[in-house]
Amino acid sequence: MSVGKSIPRVDAWEKVSGRAKYTEDLAPANALVGKVLHSSIANGLVKSIDTKEAEKMSGVIKIITCFDVPDYPYPTAGHPWTTDPAHWDPMDRRLLNKRVRFYGDDIAAVIAVDAVCAARALKAIKVEYDEYPVILDPEEAIKEGAVQLHEESPRNILKQTCVIDGNFEEAIKEEGLAFFEGVYETPIGQHCHLESVVSFAWMESGRIVVVAATQIPHIVRRIVAQALGLPWGKVRIIKPYIGGGFGNRQDALYEPLNALMTQAVGGRPVKLELSREEVFSNTRTRHSKKIILKSWLKSNGRFAARSYTAYSNQGAYGSHGHGVAAKGTSVFRELYREEKDARKAEIFTVYTNVAVAGALRGYGTPQAVFAIESHVEDIARKLGMDPLEFRFLNLMPVGFVDKFSGNVNRFDSFRQCVELGKDYIKWDEKRERYKDQSGPVRRGVGVSLFWYNTAVWPISIEVSACRMVLNQDGSIQIMLGECEIGQGSDTAFAQMAAETLGIRWQDVHVVSVQDTDISPFGTGAYASRQTYVGGTAIHKAALMLKEKILNAAQDFMQQKETFDKAAQREKSWGDSGEFRGESLDIVDGNIVLEKNHKRVLMSLASLATETLYSAENSQHITSETTAQVKSNAYSFGCCFAEVEVDLPLGKIKVLDMVNCHDCGKLINPLLAAGQVHGGMSMAIGLGIYEQFIYDSKTGKLLNGNFLDYKIPTILDHPRLEARFVENPEPTSPYGTKALGEPPTVPGAAAIRNAVLQATGVAINKIPMTPHLLFSEFKAAGLI
Amino acid sequence: MSVGKSIPRVDAWEKVSGRAKYTEDLAPANALVGKVLHSSIANGLVKSIDTKEAEKMSGVIKIITCFDVPDYPYPTAGHPWTTDPAHWDPMDRRLLNKRVRFYGDDIAAVIAVDAVCAARALKAIKVEYDEYPVILDPEEAIKEGAVQLHEESPRNILKQTCVIDGNFEEAIKEEGLAFFEGVYETPIGQHCHLESVVSFAWMESGRIVVVAATQIPHIVRRIVAQALGLPWGKVRIIKPYIGGGFGNRQDALYEPLNALMTQAVGGRPVKLELSREEVFSNTRTRHSKKIILKSWLKSNGRFAARSYTAYSNQGAYGSHGHGVAAKGTSVFRELYREEKDARKAEIFTVYTNVAVAGALRGYGTPQAVFAIESHVEDIARKLGMDPLEFRFLNLMPVGFVDKFSGNVNRFDSFRQCVELGKDYIKWDEKRERYKDQSGPVRRGVGVSLFWYNTAVWPISIEVSACRMVLNQDGSIQIMLGECEIGQGSDTAFAQMAAETLGIRWQDVHVVSVQDTDISPFGTGAYASRQTYVGGTAIHKAALMLKEKILNAAQDFMQQKETFDKAAQREKSWGDSGEFRGESLDIVDGNIVLEKNHKRVLMSLASLATETLYSAENSQHITSETTAQVKSNAYSFGCCFAEVEVDLPLGKIKVLDMVNCHDCGKLINPLLAAGQVHGGMSMAIGLGIYEQFIYDSKTGKLLNGNFLDYKIPTILDHPRLEARFVENPEPTSPYGTKALGEPPTVPGAAAIRNAVLQATGVAINKIPMTPHLLFSEFKAAGLI
Repeated sequence: MSVGKSIPRVDAWEKVSGRAKYTEDLAPANALVGKVLHSSIANGLVKSIDTKEAEKMSGVIKIITCFDVPDYPYPTAGHPWTTDPAHWDPMDRRLLNKRVRFYGDDIAAVIAVDAVCAARALKAIKVEYDEYPVILDPEEAIKEGAVQLHEESPRNILKQTCVIDGNFEEAIKEEGLAFFEGVYETPIGQHCHLESVVSFAWMESGRIVVVAATQIPHIVRRIVAQALGLPWGKVRIIKPYIGGGFGNRQDALYEPLNALMTQAVGGRPVKLELSREEVFSNTRTRHSKKIILKSWLKSNGRFAARSYTAYSNQGAYGSHGHGVAAKGTSVFRELYREEKDARKAEIFTVYTNVAVAGALRGYGTPQAVFAIESHVEDIARKLGMDPLEFRFLNLMPVGFVDKFSGNVNRFDSFRQCVELGKDYIKWDEKRERYKDQSGPVRRGVGVSLFWYNTAVWPISIEVSACRMVLNQDGSIQIMLGECEIGQGSDTAFAQMAAETLGIRWQDVHVVSVQDTDISPFGTGAYASRQTYVGGTAIHKAALMLKEKILNAAQDFMQQKETFDKAAQREKSWGDSGEFRGESLDIVDGNIVLEKNHKRVLMSLASLATETLYSAENSQHITSETTAQVKSNAYSFGCCFAEVEVDLPLGKIKVLDMVNCHDCGKLINPLLAAGQVHGGMSMAIGLGIYEQFIYDSKTGKLLNGNFLDYKIPTILDHPRLEARFVENPEPTSPYGTKALGEPPTVPGAAAIRNAVLQATGVAINKIPMTPHLLFSEFKAAGLI
Repeated sequence: MSVGKSIPRVDAWEKVSGRAKYTEDLAPANALVGKVLHSSIANGLVKSIDTKEAEKMSGVIKIITCFDVPDYPYPTAGHPWTTDPAHWDPMDRRLLNKRVRFYGDDIAAVIAVDAVCAARALKAIKVEYDEYPVILDPEEAIKEGAVQLHEESPRNILKQTCVIDGNFEEAIKEEGLAFFEGVYETPIGQHCHLESVVSFAWMESGRIVVVAATQIPHIVRRIVAQALGLPWGKVRIIKPYIGGGFGNRQDALYEPLNALMTQAVGGRPVKLELSREEVFSNTRTRHSKKIILKSWLKSNGRFAARSYTAYSNQGAYGSHGHGVAAKGTSVFRELYREEKDARKAEIFTVYTNVAVAGALRGYGTPQAVFAIESHVEDIARKLGMDPLEFRFLNLMPVGFVDKFSGNVNRFDSFRQCVELGKDYIKWDEKRERYKDQSGPVRRGVGVSLFWYNTAVWPISIEVSACRMVLNQDGSIQIMLGECEIGQGSDTAFAQMAAETLGIRWQDVHVVSVQDTDISPFGTGAYASRQTYVGGTAIHKAALMLKEKILNAAQDFMQQKETFDKAAQREKSWGDSGEFRGESLDIVDGNIVLEKNHKRVLMSLASLATETLYSAENSQHITSETTAQVKSNAYSFGCCFAEVEVDLPLGKIKVLDMVNCHDCGKLINPLLAAGQVHGGMSMAIGLGIYEQFIYDSKTGKLLNGNFLDYKIPTILDHPRLEARFVENPEPTSPYGTKALGEPPTVPGAAAIRNAVLQATGVAINKIPMTPHLLFSEFKAAGLI
């Protein structure tokens, strides 16, 4: 049994020893260097670009401006394609932009022999602009008369939707309802992956090859082709190991421009690596959201109706756009239930002149859950109810079915998770202990619940293909389009393949590099889909491989003469005289009788060798198949946090924190815990530390670097605890469901609710920085 | 139609522009450098190696000696494996050798930070030997009392076989037979590929990766594993573009030692590149052969009996061994026929202290054909018969079947080829014109016939797997284990795949790099098997892919609603209303009605895209299959040469030369002509210029460099002419048969026979250097 064990990562040795090859390691030494000229205004038009001086400079090979690029509008979001234009992601991007939409927009590019030459040339380029007023706030952007960023989006609304369930308008008119309202705000933030955004590209036989740190090689292939107006088969993307993604690389970032660069210099290799400052300004961010929640409560503590209004700040370009706002809505609609399903959700995704928002671990739900879980906490507090009791009174019940996704709340996962968390954090004891505090330093415990989807069906297709190759030593290679991005998927893939095939995980060699010319199709690492969708493909391909192996074994065993001759050479083998065509199986890398696993007929290694080199029927045993997944699965969980708040300093210290997840069966408990720890860390960053700060006049990002953009360090973390409930997911061959993103979701609200218990102050805005807390505590009269 | 056209090479742009990546281009800049210490004696024992001084030198990382290496005997020949030990290639090799068997044998290896450090360290190593007498000549080596090179080979005979057909002993006793005897000698020579023997290796997750300039990546994988005692799946071989092979790289050369080197330094990358001098001494050579032919002729001009005795000089290690000698025998047995099939062939493959002989384009037949075609020429001349008339009287007849290989002489190919050649060279006119010459400079024309097998069945298995991947623009990738080695196979593969699939060759992207983790199994580039065996795999995989495509097209077209909606968007598509489930086909990249190729329903690109992104039934359409070939095919041909001989200078000038081949249907006439030109050039080298010269006392190679080992330059070539007869081969899906090696085979004898006509002197030894000709002409009284 390989599944369920905490085996070491298959890439551990490579990564710990520093020998794993990342994009930068692979770039040829003679690659030219590309650099991008960014606009120094946030909103306006490029009137002219003068490159004369720059072109004369030694070492400058080529300069491309926004006046030179092909006019193919293209989308950048990492979603599967669809042939139905109605479902396309926003096609609002060009390789370089005359119409500048944020401070730092790409307006020209230099290709030079090295980075110094390129940087000097950038400085020598002169640009004239027409400048428009800067709009940073969605509520300003949608006002009549605001400058419009994109022709096809009046009032700067990329998309606006309103979903009303039940008899909402009637329900709120019911007599005797208690009314609650809260406005919650979340910041723009970023992924902060270790490895920069980097790629290099060259041309081969008229085709463009891009080696890129991406989560979505097959999708980037399509987007590069779209951006350059090429047949898709003319583009090849190669993805080596990458240093984190967290959704930033679930977008085509600079791969299309890098492809254009090599095309512009006749196919010579060109490397394009962003500085950290450029990663902040010019890649993707987490959408800032303003969420207004209204609740109408009956006297029995049940919701009569609820409403959710959200403004999602898209920034300058569409990227993942409205999908991120919509995902928040689904949390609102399903996490808690009204007695008669009366609810309304209205959401606006709005273009502004800030950096482009895209996918970031949790895809809009950390923001929504912060609002929703703050709101229910506030209601419970106002009612004087136990916050968990109030939640369970209104929570998605066991047996609940979401009609759209088909998701079912099959087990009592919420309660199981909450019990684990309460037990760990000593909830009852501490709630009691921290009830009445005074003094400048106070403590509290808080909780937050959440659920999360697994993969994206039925919003998009879910498809993954897998190929397996049997080696002559009985080991296999497996290949998928799904990607190791640091999360450990290669290890999980090896375990799953080994499990189904009946071989050791050490004998599964995962081909970790995706190459779109070679790798089976898979859409990539996002939406917490790797073990669920990729796992389904592995299961299907492994069953196919196993069938081929057992058929070959039957053939071989039934050629008694051949078998006996071979068995004579290999004295360890069984005697085929005893073999009567019984059904076979593979256990521990051996061909055995299905009815008696201890009866070893021969090793898989021997069978593979005999079969490949058979003069009668030589076969290279491989399997390849596409798995389409038409299901989704609820992942459940909660977070408990204990904090200490220093009122005069406005400082929160997280003393203890536990995430409890039901993500189905664990493939690798240690890796699962690692995922949870990382997600909890990001939740701490979201709740207390991280935010983009813009200059409101110029629209310039003021803290786009690690000195000024604060992520929590190891000293800002408590010991992070991960606990699991393993209710096997029936729609998954290995019983798994989402765990990649969920750990990030509940933490910020749990911390906020702990601060509430400690101080009595409801902070409705994150991050809860000293600046914010100081003014809030002051307003509350605490300091 | 793609097959039969002279399309440009698919790798032309890469190679002409210098951008194609070869092994050396890919080696990491930080790779350590490995160098080998070669013995300074030719026969003996290493008593001790003192590495103390060398180990102290700065930059030296590790020294390995013959006393340190694992003791796994391994074979090096590039043949498919077999599980039957009786058919194994000689397993007489170790990674480094205590028992020295030739001057330059590998006895130690240095790994250092760069080449200079490594070279210095080599010089600082002190070796003590026990020296034995040097044996260079097979006839000396088999004598009783000669020092034995390998324990398991008494009298230094690697293998000895004797085949007697018919009633040979009776037949030669018949009264009235004319008897002819000739002794023919051919030199040791080499491949002289442009690119050196080079590889680099590193370790990844406990596995060894070797990037190597090899013709046989899958076989090298097996051999590296055998040499290091590893499971085969622990080794991965990657083969980039290579600069020629000609059989030298149909052997595991230094890949096993390179693998050991990286293992010895904990997996750090180590590069191992041979100097040209090392390539000469330490890789593989063409076997020198001494062939004694005897013929008993009846008065009707038919052979009553023939005998063939050959001594094949194997050099120090087994490599391809007796197979190369045996292949000569088959030419002897099948090219000419005795009235009652009475013949005897006895061959000896003998170890000596010269460089190791292996595979070289033609695999022993250029030597055998030199002897056989010289011998029949001499007989015809002595009989006063026309040499072609005499040949046709005794030649393998139309309808002849070789029982062993199953090969059939189906057409009148010999006569068709000869007619083409006669016509081109103006045979009758020139034979007449050059009949009676005097003076110091004379001219002559000569001819030589030959046949050649295609691939190796039934001696070994013939198997090749192929995978195809459909892209969303209707283009495909194809992957095989078969290798582009400069011969143009990638181009032929693209043409064949395009032909069967009904798409443009431009839309076939051949994955040129073989990677044993990924590439389907194929044994590699040798035995003129690429288009025949690889072509069968391509045909099978293409039919499978086409079937999947047409099934998907049927499904899509029958979902009328989906089709109509899509067709509405793509106005160029047909109207599915007219579609009634008819059979479909693919023509020019479009899905058409089988019965009406002009009725285009949709492009393959659209179908691929719709199918991959189908919400109903998403499929990544690929195909993969193994093709086992259990047939062989005769390739036929002849060479005509016209020479001018300067008697006093002993110099031959080749004035004109034509090779005529029936290699079945031509996939690409221009590439086929290129193959023929190259082969003819090698034949000129074999006949006139190239030979290894050894110091008889020390066994040291005296001319192992391009200054002293003379290959013909462009100035030594006439305009080379290639002519073709295209009798389609029924056992091949594209009607092809061997062309890779055949062009090398007949030339030396044709030149020799032209010299005979010019001078009346029968030269029975090649190369026909001035030194040899001077003494021969002097003996004949001409000078």
